[in-house]
Amino acid sequence: MVDIVIVGSVAFDTVETPFGSVKEALGGSATYASLAASFFSKPGIVAVVGNDFNNHNVFHTNNICTKGLKTVEGRTFRWSGYYEYDMNQAHTIQTEENVFKDFLPDIPEEYKNARYVFLGNIGPELQLHVLKQMNNPIAIMDVMNYWIERTRDRLFDVMKKCNILLMNDSEARELFKTTNLITAGQKALKIGLQAVVIKKGEHGVLLFTKDRVFSLPGYPCENLKDPTGAGDSFAGAFTGYLSKNGINEESLRKAVVYGSAVASFNVEDFSFNNLKRITINDIENRYKEFRNLMTF
Amino acid sequence: MVDIVIVGSVAFDTVETPFGSVKEALGGSATYASLAASFFSKPGIVAVVGNDFNNHNVFHTNNICTKGLKTVEGRTFRWSGYYEYDMNQAHTIQTEENVFKDFLPDIPEEYKNARYVFLGNIGPELQLHVLKQMNNPIAIMDVMNYWIERTRDRLFDVMKKCNILLMNDSEARELFKTTNLITAGQKALKIGLQAVVIKKGEHGVLLFTKDRVFSLPGYPCENLKDPTGAGDSFAGAFTGYLSKNGINEESLRKAVVYGSAVASFNVEDFSFNNLKRITINDIENRYKEFRNLMTF
Repeated sequence: MVDIVIVGSVAFDTVETPFGSVKEALGGSATYASLAASFFSKPGIVAVVGNDFNNHNVFHTNNICTKGLKTVEGRTFRWSGYYEYDMNQAHTIQTEENVFKDFLPDIPEEYKNARYVFLGNIGPELQLHVLKQMNNPIAIMDVMNYWIERTRDRLFDVMKKCNILLMNDSEARELFKTTNLITAGQKALKIGLQAVVIKKGEHGVLLFTKDRVFSLPGYPCENLKDPTGAGDSFAGAFTGYLSKNGINEESLRKAVVYGSAVASFNVEDFSFNNLKRITINDIENRYKEFRNLMTF
Repeated sequence: MVDIVIVGSVAFDTVETPFGSVKEALGGSATYASLAASFFSKPGIVAVVGNDFNNHNVFHTNNICTKGLKTVEGRTFRWSGYYEYDMNQAHTIQTEENVFKDFLPDIPEEYKNARYVFLGNIGPELQLHVLKQMNNPIAIMDVMNYWIERTRDRLFDVMKKCNILLMNDSEARELFKTTNLITAGQKALKIGLQAVVIKKGEHGVLLFTKDRVFSLPGYPCENLKDPTGAGDSFAGAFTGYLSKNGINEESLRKAVVYGSAVASFNVEDFSFNNLKRITINDIENRYKEFRNLMTF
């Protein structure tokens, strides 16, 4: 039995930043999110890879179920891109969808009663296809500019079926057609979502719940190496924490801090090297650092 | 006897934002800073105006000493500019220095023993000229991109004589030649400053002290009308609070919150209309709102 079903991409990423580079490193939203979630609870991954993929042990050593990780003939999804000194902005060089192109996930029986589902960077049709197969889970969804530009209306259909919406600042502005992030968050709540999270990269995170706003500043990171996977590792840890603690104002705020703590480690090294290295103690220490950072 | 000497510009501003406009409204760094400081202590202003200036009563009704406000033949400093939806960026249409051009401030005798001085947006030579006339005050300085580009080295001479440096994010990056604001803050501390404050507009404020960082998120403002004077009203309230409470880690952090509270009111209306309207009770309530916004 898994606690959280995590649907998204598993990919090989080629990334260059001002501080170094990696070639065909394991990545993808489902990879980052499930590794981050695994610090708090048991995730089951739903994704597709090609027969060039031989990295299952990363998931198994982190207690992540791969029953929903399908292997098909062909090449695994690949992304290459770079970041300049302003690392809030990823520049794509090439996206090879490969086996991801025809991805139509079947949810394994063992996953269908999981209490939580995280819908990563897949299109709204696939998000709905996943939700339909699950037995009324608490659903947390992420959006991407790509889908906002192509299937905006359909994203609203998914939102109406979800409990929590995660997006970054530019997605929030584009989706709700406003420059003001507070306005965007309030508009999203009106759809009927229980909570709305806007990730602002180095500037932290906003959490909107009925009549309340929580604002967490970014972790003061001097050693930012590679922002790839920051949003997904935030989402994984956020969902993982909630799956163990339920959803209320206090747990949501703490989940934002844990999500930010895990994401802040992730960006301090390339790929998910740091997620493999750190322990729950490191995360707890960073959680305390956030408290010291904000006390007045 | 005044508590704080505030040196800077008094100006007539013509401003357009997506939410309205004002024509030749009273503004300038010394105006905003002294009004904001007056909620906490008694400021004395040092500035120059032309004989077209007839607005002394704004200062007098707020208990601001104008002994250092010199009137000379000519026109008062004028600035006109506009903001687009991204209100972090002011676009200048025209700057008329007018009487400000030959401004060489004489500090009145009654000001010379003030414990605090705030050096607003004047050049480093003038900042040094002011400091020399004062009797060893606690000095808080602001910088501007304009002076960084023209007299960068001289700014470092001023910093070495000051206790606290205030700057915004783009100034911090330019002055310390790094994209990373944490690195910029640490570099500034190494000059010998006791505290360094980086203002990030809607993203809040960073405070650096020896071995510590405080990060305050921005106030979640849906009703942003005119950002003119936000930085100066922050500086005024920050300095005003410190002048009453002394300088230590706790008071510095609280001063950042009070500064942000006052600045958040200021941007909710044009010119300094809100600074005239609000009371210390409003400021205390917003201070509490910051606490609720950040509690986890």
